[in-house]
Amino acid sequence: MRGRFITLEGGEGAGKSTQAALLADDLRGTGLDVVVTREPGGAPGAEDIRALLVNGEVGRWRPLTEALLHYAARREHLDATILPALAAGRWVVCDRFADSTLAYQGYGHGLDRETVARLHRLVVGDLGPDLTIILDLPVDEGLARAAGRGAGGDRYERMDRQFHERLRQGFLDIARRNLDRCAVVDATAPLDQVQHEIRRIVQARLGPVGS
Amino acid sequence: MRGRFITLEGGEGAGKSTQAALLADDLRGTGLDVVVTREPGGAPGAEDIRALLVNGEVGRWRPLTEALLHYAARREHLDATILPALAAGRWVVCDRFADSTLAYQGYGHGLDRETVARLHRLVVGDLGPDLTIILDLPVDEGLARAAGRGAGGDRYERMDRQFHERLRQGFLDIARRNLDRCAVVDATAPLDQVQHEIRRIVQARLGPVGS
Repeated sequence: MRGRFITLEGGEGAGKSTQAALLADDLRGTGLDVVVTREPGGAPGAEDIRALLVNGEVGRWRPLTEALLHYAARREHLDATILPALAAGRWVVCDRFADSTLAYQGYGHGLDRETVARLHRLVVGDLGPDLTIILDLPVDEGLARAAGRGAGGDRYERMDRQFHERLRQGFLDIARRNLDRCAVVDATAPLDQVQHEIRRIVQARLGPVGS
Repeated sequence: MRGRFITLEGGEGAGKSTQAALLADDLRGTGLDVVVTREPGGAPGAEDIRALLVNGEVGRWRPLTEALLHYAARREHLDATILPALAAGRWVVCDRFADSTLAYQGYGHGLDRETVARLHRLVVGDLGPDLTIILDLPVDEGLARAAGRGAGGDRYERMDRQFHERLRQGFLDIARRNLDRCAVVDATAPLDQVQHEIRRIVQARLGPVGS
């Protein structure tokens, strides 16, 4: 039986990678075989493309170029990691996926949504997630948390505050337009409370989990 | 007045970069302002993407991923180099352009042509060349010439002989399907004869050139 594909989305500092690991642990506790992965990246070629995206000057790429690089990495990630895992009955928990491209390059950088949608249909088609958790928190809190991780921040963290505000509203709009697939979680809550809420949503949306 | 956009296409070792430089000299001799550029590359971000494409293992990328990377670099090249030059009335002579993606990833690696066409419409639209010169020569001769340049060959040169044969037939098919835009030149002829033939075609297709 095909596994399930769950993505975690949201702005910088929302706790996506932490919650992805916690959710994977929870799912494994029920006997499931789980792959945790991330975008951009998650496969050797895709990680090479990631290096072009997260490093360097903020204005390094035009929005369409950047979207193409994300989708190149995404196709590699799907073929090398996600689809083989799902076909083998494993569950995939992914830190970011296509909603991030729409939020960052579309809502954030003004690339028109129809262009992003055409690119999505061309590269990804119907291979989307079964469930998407959008971790929402105020921009200032997210950027402060991301800054707390040190190292000066990656390329996306260094984009301006207004960009991050458009990003947040973009994710909320994506959630409103995809009610069947998406659930918004308040990421200002304590870590274990967020973890519990995500677990509740997974069981409510995907049914009783594990053996 | 908008400049003209001329591309040189063909397999490995066909003499594209040499002939691009000679054509640019000829055009400059008539008083034109000429930019010589290349793909993948031709702009800072595009050259960064080029490094992912020409180096590493032959099987490093799946055909669709590879086409996306080429089109990402192409969009950057168009926006940063080609379109500003044309708008300023300069002529652009480019070593490879979109026909190479169709020939290499389409005809060579079997990515379906409709997918390449959709990607082209999405990223490039109508911004194509005014004239394309396809330098044609037998595969063995091209590979021998490319090997003569030393350094073990880039990633594309190291692909197998059958791939290069499909590539050659692909370029010839592209020429047959785009008679208004393309001209095939026998690249087995001596260098100065090829140069003369290209100059003749440019004048015949684009009209009397220069001041």
